[in-house]
Amino acid sequence: MRIKVINGNTFEPMTRGIDESAQAVRSPQTEIITTQPKAGPESIEGYYDEYLAIPGILEEVILSGDEIDAFVIACWGDPGVEAARELTTKPVVGIAEASMYVANMVAARWGVVTTMHRALDMIEKTIHRAGFSHRCVSIRTTGLSVIETETARQATIAALETAGRLAITEDKAEALCLGCAGMSGLDKALEERLEIPIIDAVAAAVKMAEAIVGLQKQTSKALTYQRPESKRIKGFPDYMQF
Amino acid sequence: MRIKVINGNTFEPMTRGIDESAQAVRSPQTEIITTQPKAGPESIEGYYDEYLAIPGILEEVILSGDEIDAFVIACWGDPGVEAARELTTKPVVGIAEASMYVANMVAARWGVVTTMHRALDMIEKTIHRAGFSHRCVSIRTTGLSVIETETARQATIAALETAGRLAITEDKAEALCLGCAGMSGLDKALEERLEIPIIDAVAAAVKMAEAIVGLQKQTSKALTYQRPESKRIKGFPDYMQF
Amino acid sequence: MRIKVINGNTFEPMTRGIDESAQAVRSPQTEIITTQPKAGPESIEGYYDEYLAIPGILEEVILSGDEIDAFVIACWGDPGVEAARELTTKPVVGIAEASMYVANMVAARWGVVTTMHRALDMIEKTIHRAGFSHRCVSIRTTGLSVIETETARQATIAALETAGRLAITEDKAEALCLGCAGMSGLDKALEERLEIPIIDAVAAAVKMAEAIVGLQKQTSKALTYQRPESKRIKGFPDYMQF
Amino acid sequence: MRIKVINGNTFEPMTRGIDESAQAVRSPQTEIITTQPKAGPESIEGYYDEYLAIPGILEEVILSGDEIDAFVIACWGDPGVEAARELTTKPVVGIAEASMYVANMVAARWGVVTTMHRALDMIEKTIHRAGFSHRCVSIRTTGLSVIETETARQATIAALETAGRLAITEDKAEALCLGCAGMSGLDKALEERLEIPIIDAVAAAVKMAEAIVGLQKQTSKALTYQRPESKRIKGFPDYMQF
Amino acid sequence: MRIKVINGNTFEPMTRGIDESAQAVRSPQTEIITTQPKAGPESIEGYYDEYLAIPGILEEVILSGDEIDAFVIACWGDPGVEAARELTTKPVVGIAEASMYVANMVAARWGVVTTMHRALDMIEKTIHRAGFSHRCVSIRTTGLSVIETETARQATIAALETAGRLAITEDKAEALCLGCAGMSGLDKALEERLEIPIIDAVAAAVKMAEAIVGLQKQTSKALTYQRPESKRIKGFPDYMQF
Amino acid sequence: MRIKVINGNTFEPMTRGIDESAQAVRSPQTEIITTQPKAGPESIEGYYDEYLAIPGILEEVILSGDEIDAFVIACWGDPGVEAARELTTKPVVGIAEASMYVANMVAARWGVVTTMHRALDMIEKTIHRAGFSHRCVSIRTTGLSVIETETARQATIAALETAGRLAITEDKAEALCLGCAGMSGLDKALEERLEIPIIDAVAAAVKMAEAIVGLQKQTSKALTYQRPESKRIKGFPDYMQF
Repeated sequence: MRIKVINGNTFEPMTRGIDESAQAVRSPQTEIITTQPKAGPESIEGYYDEYLAIPGILEEVILSGDEIDAFVIACWGDPGVEAARELTTKPVVGIAEASMYVANMVAARWGVVTTMHRALDMIEKTIHRAGFSHRCVSIRTTGLSVIETETARQATIAALETAGRLAITEDKAEALCLGCAGMSGLDKALEERLEIPIIDAVAAAVKMAEAIVGLQKQTSKALTYQRPESKRIKGFPDYMQF
Repeated sequence: MRIKVINGNTFEPMTRGIDESAQAVRSPQTEIITTQPKAGPESIEGYYDEYLAIPGILEEVILSGDEIDAFVIACWGDPGVEAARELTTKPVVGIAEASMYVANMVAARWGVVTTMHRALDMIEKTIHRAGFSHRCVSIRTTGLSVIETETARQATIAALETAGRLAITEDKAEALCLGCAGMSGLDKALEERLEIPIIDAVAAAVKMAEAIVGLQKQTSKALTYQRPESKRIKGFPDYMQF
Repeated sequence: MRIKVINGNTFEPMTRGIDESAQAVRSPQTEIITTQPKAGPESIEGYYDEYLAIPGILEEVILSGDEIDAFVIACWGDPGVEAARELTTKPVVGIAEASMYVANMVAARWGVVTTMHRALDMIEKTIHRAGFSHRCVSIRTTGLSVIETETARQATIAALETAGRLAITEDKAEALCLGCAGMSGLDKALEERLEIPIIDAVAAAVKMAEAIVGLQKQTSKALTYQRPESKRIKGFPDYMQF
Repeated sequence: MRIKVINGNTFEPMTRGIDESAQAVRSPQTEIITTQPKAGPESIEGYYDEYLAIPGILEEVILSGDEIDAFVIACWGDPGVEAARELTTKPVVGIAEASMYVANMVAARWGVVTTMHRALDMIEKTIHRAGFSHRCVSIRTTGLSVIETETARQATIAALETAGRLAITEDKAEALCLGCAGMSGLDKALEERLEIPIIDAVAAAVKMAEAIVGLQKQTSKALTYQRPESKRIKGFPDYMQF
Repeated sequence: MRIKVINGNTFEPMTRGIDESAQAVRSPQTEIITTQPKAGPESIEGYYDEYLAIPGILEEVILSGDEIDAFVIACWGDPGVEAARELTTKPVVGIAEASMYVANMVAARWGVVTTMHRALDMIEKTIHRAGFSHRCVSIRTTGLSVIETETARQATIAALETAGRLAITEDKAEALCLGCAGMSGLDKALEERLEIPIIDAVAAAVKMAEAIVGLQKQTSKALTYQRPESKRIKGFPDYMQF
Repeated sequence: MRIKVINGNTFEPMTRGIDESAQAVRSPQTEIITTQPKAGPESIEGYYDEYLAIPGILEEVILSGDEIDAFVIACWGDPGVEAARELTTKPVVGIAEASMYVANMVAARWGVVTTMHRALDMIEKTIHRAGFSHRCVSIRTTGLSVIETETARQATIAALETAGRLAITEDKAEALCLGCAGMSGLDKALEERLEIPIIDAVAAAVKMAEAIVGLQKQTSKALTYQRPESKRIKGFPDYMQF
């Protein structure tokens, strides 16, 4: 089974970190191919970043052909996931939804910790869209940028520990989703400190993708996720036309 | 006051139709500048189309400089509207939200009629996100493509009349939002036939934009809609970097 | 275009303040006629006040005849707005709904500041009814009465500034609706202090009314807002019978 | 124990019917005093009717003094119930809420049948406000006016049977609330025909009022339902000033 | 009228306390029979406890035969209430739902105070299921076990007073439900201290049961609460087979 | 990895069917141990059945000791899943939640098909509790009992095909969850007929359990799912005391 993990961001060290997280949890039968879009922002920290990232993410889906069995979109917010589902019969899993499903299965009430303060609304909307406003009891931010999160690991762990402790004591969170692909790999260190389940969202999505492939389920083409209608799309390469 | 109306689609006849709707309702003091992205799909009929359209829409916002007082994004689904709000202090109005606000002010229960059957989920999500699941009692589709909607006007009117009549009799809708920018200009013809308020979403958004400018309100830069963080964005022109 | 703005309260200085707010934002083509009911409480600060105010508000709608193009009901809570819609084909706009629509278009998360502590439940229910519980993140009260709000302007501004600052820092509100018609005219002073959009609800409603008139939309008579059924209404003047 | 049942309508035969329903279920220790407002519409069939009825309803509460132990407001929609709670420390029960509570305790899924088609929105909003959108699976209307409902009993029963049967077969309702005080007394006849619990809303409210008095609970004066603020109320009698 | 009150817990002093609360509010015509399951946990403080208690609760319903007119299940959380409704045509009332209905009728915003901190999720889910997330503004826990709550009355009152005061001042609760059957009988002492309505949930349920019996309503057998299907149930006595 | 799959029902052929479904999708490294409670109903078709089944389900968790890595509770409705989470640090997955998560990842709008008509309310509540009322657009029942579902395979497939086709055409469902453990193994036959993803809930849960074990996540013991409090539990064996 081959799973293509697409970092939504174009910061190469982050793609490597995501790959490590994905490799660490893959089943022996699974091959992980981690990539990043050719175009798009280094890091996704707001709506502008997110929307500029999506065409590149979708291009990665289109270019994969039939050799891929499932896709993971690695950015908490699940950018473009519905569009990716139109492009392929293969399952497409967003790391936000995957991490929330795992959180639901191990905790009654959970929280999300993420990077910049401005992301609060994006995180809230992602949770509301998923239907989990009654399960998520805490959203906390570190104030660190995505790049700092990726590169300043000790500061990031310290900030996440602080935020997480508040989520536990103030908001009664019983598990935490790491709300940024750049936090991949920090779950173990935080579990040691906070003693509640910490969900690495990339890892969660890899396991969800394996699960759906294992079930031999494909994306429904009944209505919403039908192949894009055939039409002219200006300014995009031929292979992105339908 | 100058309002820039950005068609989310790149089909030129549709841009002209949108412009006519906008011109028809603008106040005497308002200048309307209708445009379409340089790149993007001819028509937005699914999530893939929508996400490929957004960077071009955002580019139109960025390129405008200070001479524009408000922006309207003309595609029911309000693609990229939060990102556009990050890019400017000027108000940005989506035609979906604008038409729903107007519907709320003239009817207790309303519906949305749109183009292709596959758009049902997009329409529903747009309404749910806005908070109006308890006000919208009907979503009906004509089965016509956006291009057909724009070019085959008589067939479109007939199909909208049929869909609208079902919305009224079966679902007890008391007003209807035209759920596609390509339906601009059809409200009068449908009002004659259906005898309930029919909301031209583009027109509604122009009036909402005028209203906010008239109130001298600007997009809040307090948190969510702060200017995008400064970073490298690969594959996009310099003027789209922050 | 003539817009009749009906103060829900019968405190004359407040009606003048409302008129000033309405005049300040009207379009050149718009004539504003501000009035107050003949009967009803000086100020609306609870449910009893609100319900005693409504018949007088409705009387103002009935007495207007055809020379009015739209009505604004000026009391945050939108008292009697559905009933007013039954009485006329002209659009009727409540200042609460109007201010929330404007807030939605300029901010991702917003709050409401109002007068007395006891109004908390009324405010919450107004927001819940509108569908915006997920957008409104803060309700704060000054503890001042409506009359004090109208007459003790410096104390009111100071109290609103304090409440607003808590809404911003504690609740992460990014815009604020002034949740009382008696706060009309204070938006500019508060914007200077708080540096986020402050929505004068009366002004917002005037612009919404202009927008709907500009769209040539009328209140739907399809079902809910049909003209009241013909019947005897004891104790009310002849012109209030149907 | 004395319970004052206030018909929201001023149609005397209806007040008698309500009284019969209330008398039929009262406990031996309970005295029922059924009344109707001095002013207000004969029948409440829309928002205008409802708002003109409320001051008269509230007057009935005010005039009662201390000899009353609880109040029932007899109009499905619970007009003015929050205001009545401000006026007295005694419990105030609306017939809509009471009937829904009873329905919840005897059925998993229930419906409401009411009079005129135009009332659909009022009924829906009443249910939504109460929090029972997930329990109410059916709203059906007979198309008969309130007066016809009160005076043409056989036609009413036939129409309710037809509506009720559709609620059961189409919507899987397992109990029905009679959504108009004018339907009081019809529950037994309908139960024979439909074989599911039919809730007479007036009767339900009398028992709820008895229950709260039996518990020696009074209306909370902590915040929302504090006594109305002292102020001038123009055009209302002295005893309605606070 | 005979009401059987079934303590969900098997701690005999608690059953006596529940009986006292029930006896104290019953109508003269009502006979109260309070009992506890033969099997099950001493106290219900978590989901495991709750599910082990339910078969014993249901057995108490089955063993009652026709001499009982209504059942009350005395454990906040309403364990097994839907199953009990399948077993009998007589009304079955849970103390949680009953207390929330009473709270709604005397207060605009209310809270729940309960025993152990871990019960927070159970309480929240009970409120969410009932549809009252918008009415309940506070959930507070004393940290005391159910047995301590029953036996250490002074400590319990002190802890409830502290929790209640926070609910009032911090969360603006205007009434409180005692969220544990073991708190029965403490409402008066707390009302003296906190000066808002305190709802004894057992007492509330007894009055609700009396109300439904007084209305001659029975559990709907239309669909959900039909008698259990006939089948073999291993390991349970013959009288529990259907 | 060892996963214990606990059939909620005590009908042995059904346990075998569940085992086959679980074996068919397990990873090579996974060992499946399928079992059924010693006590409890042959089949779960209502709330009574469900609650009598739960102690036996929990006993199966308790008896497992440390050699099990995850538990699956195989009954759509997820009986006792929160209690099971209190009993073990190992992940516990309900088949209802698992199947809904999978449905969400392959379809925008999905439905559930189940057995008896009376189960409608249980199914709806399960979906509402999970937060997916906005994703589930169809609940259909075959009218067949659980035992018939297990034993009369051709009739079951025919009935499911009929129900499924209505879900697709009438309700626009794009995937279906098989809402009964007794339907395990029918997904492929139905996918051939209906051409949309059909989710075998048992299979889905096995893959979810593997996923969580693969992530090395355990049930949070922070608050809600702490080990049951130590206390006397009458009528249960010693090993079920804490």
